[in-house]
Amino acid sequence: MATVTENQFVADLIAARQPGYSLPGAFYSEERVYRAEMDRIWRRGWLFAGHCCEIPSPGDYFTMQVDSDSMIVMRDDEGEIHAFWNVCRHRGTELCDQPSGRIGRIVCPYHQWTYARDGSLLTCRGMQEDLDKSRLGLRSTHVRVIAGFVFISLAQQPPPFEQAAELIGALGQPQGLERAKVAKTVDYDVAANWKIVWENNRECYHCNVNHPQYIKANFDHYNADDINERVQAKIDAAVTHSEEKWSATGLAVSHRRSGMTRFPDVERNCWYSANRTPLVEGYVSETMDGKQVAPLMGDYTDADVGTLRIRTMPNLWNHSSCDHGVSTRLLPAGPKRTLIRVTWLVDSAAVEGRDYQVEEIMPFWQLTSEQDWAICEQAQRGVESSGYLPGPFSTYKEYNVDGFVRWYLQQLALA
Amino acid sequence: MATVTENQFVADLIAARQPGYSLPGAFYSEERVYRAEMDRIWRRGWLFAGHCCEIPSPGDYFTMQVDSDSMIVMRDDEGEIHAFWNVCRHRGTELCDQPSGRIGRIVCPYHQWTYARDGSLLTCRGMQEDLDKSRLGLRSTHVRVIAGFVFISLAQQPPPFEQAAELIGALGQPQGLERAKVAKTVDYDVAANWKIVWENNRECYHCNVNHPQYIKANFDHYNADDINERVQAKIDAAVTHSEEKWSATGLAVSHRRSGMTRFPDVERNCWYSANRTPLVEGYVSETMDGKQVAPLMGDYTDADVGTLRIRTMPNLWNHSSCDHGVSTRLLPAGPKRTLIRVTWLVDSAAVEGRDYQVEEIMPFWQLTSEQDWAICEQAQRGVESSGYLPGPFSTYKEYNVDGFVRWYLQQLALA
Amino acid sequence: MATVTENQFVADLIAARQPGYSLPGAFYSEERVYRAEMDRIWRRGWLFAGHCCEIPSPGDYFTMQVDSDSMIVMRDDEGEIHAFWNVCRHRGTELCDQPSGRIGRIVCPYHQWTYARDGSLLTCRGMQEDLDKSRLGLRSTHVRVIAGFVFISLAQQPPPFEQAAELIGALGQPQGLERAKVAKTVDYDVAANWKIVWENNRECYHCNVNHPQYIKANFDHYNADDINERVQAKIDAAVTHSEEKWSATGLAVSHRRSGMTRFPDVERNCWYSANRTPLVEGYVSETMDGKQVAPLMGDYTDADVGTLRIRTMPNLWNHSSCDHGVSTRLLPAGPKRTLIRVTWLVDSAAVEGRDYQVEEIMPFWQLTSEQDWAICEQAQRGVESSGYLPGPFSTYKEYNVDGFVRWYLQQLALA
Repeated sequence: MATVTENQFVADLIAARQPGYSLPGAFYSEERVYRAEMDRIWRRGWLFAGHCCEIPSPGDYFTMQVDSDSMIVMRDDEGEIHAFWNVCRHRGTELCDQPSGRIGRIVCPYHQWTYARDGSLLTCRGMQEDLDKSRLGLRSTHVRVIAGFVFISLAQQPPPFEQAAELIGALGQPQGLERAKVAKTVDYDVAANWKIVWENNRECYHCNVNHPQYIKANFDHYNADDINERVQAKIDAAVTHSEEKWSATGLAVSHRRSGMTRFPDVERNCWYSANRTPLVEGYVSETMDGKQVAPLMGDYTDADVGTLRIRTMPNLWNHSSCDHGVSTRLLPAGPKRTLIRVTWLVDSAAVEGRDYQVEEIMPFWQLTSEQDWAICEQAQRGVESSGYLPGPFSTYKEYNVDGFVRWYLQQLALA
Repeated sequence: MATVTENQFVADLIAARQPGYSLPGAFYSEERVYRAEMDRIWRRGWLFAGHCCEIPSPGDYFTMQVDSDSMIVMRDDEGEIHAFWNVCRHRGTELCDQPSGRIGRIVCPYHQWTYARDGSLLTCRGMQEDLDKSRLGLRSTHVRVIAGFVFISLAQQPPPFEQAAELIGALGQPQGLERAKVAKTVDYDVAANWKIVWENNRECYHCNVNHPQYIKANFDHYNADDINERVQAKIDAAVTHSEEKWSATGLAVSHRRSGMTRFPDVERNCWYSANRTPLVEGYVSETMDGKQVAPLMGDYTDADVGTLRIRTMPNLWNHSSCDHGVSTRLLPAGPKRTLIRVTWLVDSAAVEGRDYQVEEIMPFWQLTSEQDWAICEQAQRGVESSGYLPGPFSTYKEYNVDGFVRWYLQQLALA
Repeated sequence: MATVTENQFVADLIAARQPGYSLPGAFYSEERVYRAEMDRIWRRGWLFAGHCCEIPSPGDYFTMQVDSDSMIVMRDDEGEIHAFWNVCRHRGTELCDQPSGRIGRIVCPYHQWTYARDGSLLTCRGMQEDLDKSRLGLRSTHVRVIAGFVFISLAQQPPPFEQAAELIGALGQPQGLERAKVAKTVDYDVAANWKIVWENNRECYHCNVNHPQYIKANFDHYNADDINERVQAKIDAAVTHSEEKWSATGLAVSHRRSGMTRFPDVERNCWYSANRTPLVEGYVSETMDGKQVAPLMGDYTDADVGTLRIRTMPNLWNHSSCDHGVSTRLLPAGPKRTLIRVTWLVDSAAVEGRDYQVEEIMPFWQLTSEQDWAICEQAQRGVESSGYLPGPFSTYKEYNVDGFVRWYLQQLALA
């Protein structure tokens, strides 16, 4: 519960931000800002939890840690997915101490209170007979599944999900992520504020030097200030080529220019985004050499589908190629620390060793991700200095960083 | 020094507790609560320090860390035991940096101020001649020794000790702990609030599944809700048998029913308790197979003496069998951490390897203790979640947890 | 930014200090005191950074961490030394992640903003054309170099430097530290408040027992209370001998009595000090056996030059012999932690292995330093106890500790 003083502190900080400039340093290190963010953003919006293919069968679950709260995301006997606080209703003991598994019932290890897969309290041997068990089921929260992505919201009244579902559903459907399987998961503990990670994600100004692999496959590191006729011609050719080819299968080019698609959209308070874009000629997958490395996913019948990008604030981006998808999930663990999980997905029927090699699927996004985490940690060290002053954003290249900052401040101001 | 705001915060929390339910989460993780506990409980009551047999000779000492304060517990030349703050009166240097030892004088390593074993300042070479040495002895605090247990109080005016001494003295006397020796000490650093540890200790609701060794030897995991005629008959038989047998030697059965003896007793503001109870037939000692594993202690002439239990709030429980005793001492080190020392004692004349094997004495309480610390840490993780809500106590099985909570809140309210 | 409450807290603490007694415990552990010290002492005065011989050529730099702030100390193309905050003016990224090196330009690893060696912004490709680059050079702060010592001040208006420069320049000049080279650097992470380290440095009351090496070479552990005629005669003889001998070369004996020279001088608000003193007969260098172990430094033509001592508040002392100098630099890293760097310097022309052995130069001050850090950590543990009460200083031996405390409180009171 924030005090009046804390609210004022955050309000003053919000007021101190100069338009077009990076955030004041306190936003990246102050416990009071972090607590406000937890209340106003992370416990109010929709959070990406994982993929439904991670828990295909009844009783399958995984846990995830949102700040102080461990959550259990579990499929019940009817196939519905629930999100429970990982806390016994008796004396509060953590119920599941494994990151994932499959269980018939949730049994508290302390006094064996036993819950069904839908969270209802089945037995609590040793308690008085007049206890109303119907009021002692696991505390659960909102879950939405769309195109294989599982979202949860810790809010009592979460924001509307329909429009996000419509967009992500439409663009995500051909990728078939709900019929995928996890090829690999890597967890990172990054010493940087979660906003530093987003600010890094929202521009490709840093790509030329930091991401030698990424820039070979993509066009979005070019902006109005540095694009030339040769590159523009390549983009135009790729768009024309893709539109012609894809029209047959219903795929559409939804980002056809240089630069990154605009997201988040603060004017429309829009926390989700999806688009499909051509890759550079010769690339049909975001892999080291651009070649396909696993069976086609979903409804695809041809490898030449460009790249599908889906993002939701505050914690997901997914980059999918014809043959694999990569989801990145952020979870904050204090003002100076972000836990990041990167998950590689392939078609559920693909067999490792026969149909794909993990070592071929991973490097492109593993390298690009780790390059980003390293520079994020270096940025974090700098903004903690009393010598740091907010600096100007590039209007050519950092419009999305500015957009992110404005979206963030808008959310934070909603006390 | 707590501020007005901090006191109000704690008072509001106390008021928020719902009778019959576990404590709100802030009690287990808030620094402000912890500070209030240090002032109102740990620096006001009597703390178990150790056993007088640990420091049998003049100059023997051990140190113990109570929150920020290292204390020296030392025997002087007259055999009296003192408790000193481990701090030089000159510039505050820690005096003893070893956990225990024997020394002739306490010499500060910094400037060699030298104190006698009773804490008086003997020499301070280099200081001005007009210094009043009589006012610069070590700061000492209250010590009481009863039945081999050394208690200290950091309070200026500690609570009365007489009634505790009477009870513990009477029941503890036959055990002869003051003529014991330490067979083994194990220190644990447990990631749980000290109250979680006590709440665990104050019920055997968790014993059936968590303590396979313990429940073979004892009756107290049975309660009114789950005892059956067969077990009740066994208890009655054990009580009758013991009463007949023990009357000759002056031992008495002081807990003769299923379930745990009532402690702490909030109505009488009673922080101490002791009782003797029969063990299950076939058990004469709390060992893996119930057999005697060391020479009889104290005044015992027969192994069949049941189990002696002594407890004092806020930091001691002792379980003694005919042949050995086990003391558990809690010391808090922050809201989420408790340092726990378990000490196994045998008769001072017993010789290791000849009269007893450490490996035979230890497992019963080592296993049971470690099972408890593990579940306490899991409970701690749960109550830190924003999803934790206080839950109902079992009226059959958790009456002592409720009693502990009420005693605790009563102490904490005494600002 | 300190709040009114925090300022009042510090003011109350200052008022609570009893003259002639050590500081109350909160001064050594409270975050609020530490923050006030950073504002009022460490970000206001002159800090020793390093030696100019560490960065002899254009583009040479080292970094240093002052509390939250990493600073770059760099020599530019004209040979001038600058101190920059190690923070990009764009989005705040740390620029140099190495402790030292030589670079042509400072290039931010994130978006390649590029700064000249004098800190001016050269290029920022990708930014809008109307950006005023002249306002986006690296933030720099004040630098002074005297007798080979580099000082920086983070203050907007640093205190006067002229008188310090005059004294240190005059006494330091013959040592030739600006023509030296680093023979060895050792970094220590000491678990003690920085004031504990100074209080240790400001008295030799602890030397007899703690510093067996040091006391063989020096006279300053003798004070009015324990000096005898024999020792006094030796001091007088050494002073007379030195004055006669040194007069030819312009060296002067500037401390000619037993005990330590008075520093800091709170009455004159004097944060710097320098003096030359004879060593014990038979010692021409502060080495294990008193023998010269490296070529003569600076202008010296004879080994018999006693010891030169230079100190500046809040973070430097240097002890120089005829053949080597040792600088100790303190940097606080929280209320309970001080980062200490000890640097051994020899003449720049001396060749390791031929002209000197590192193993012969180091032990005297390495041992003495490490003896001090150990006792400082033990002192820190003690003053964190609630049992610590400020104790009386020895008027014979701790006049400089009292002087330090009074200087410190004077600075801290300047809100």
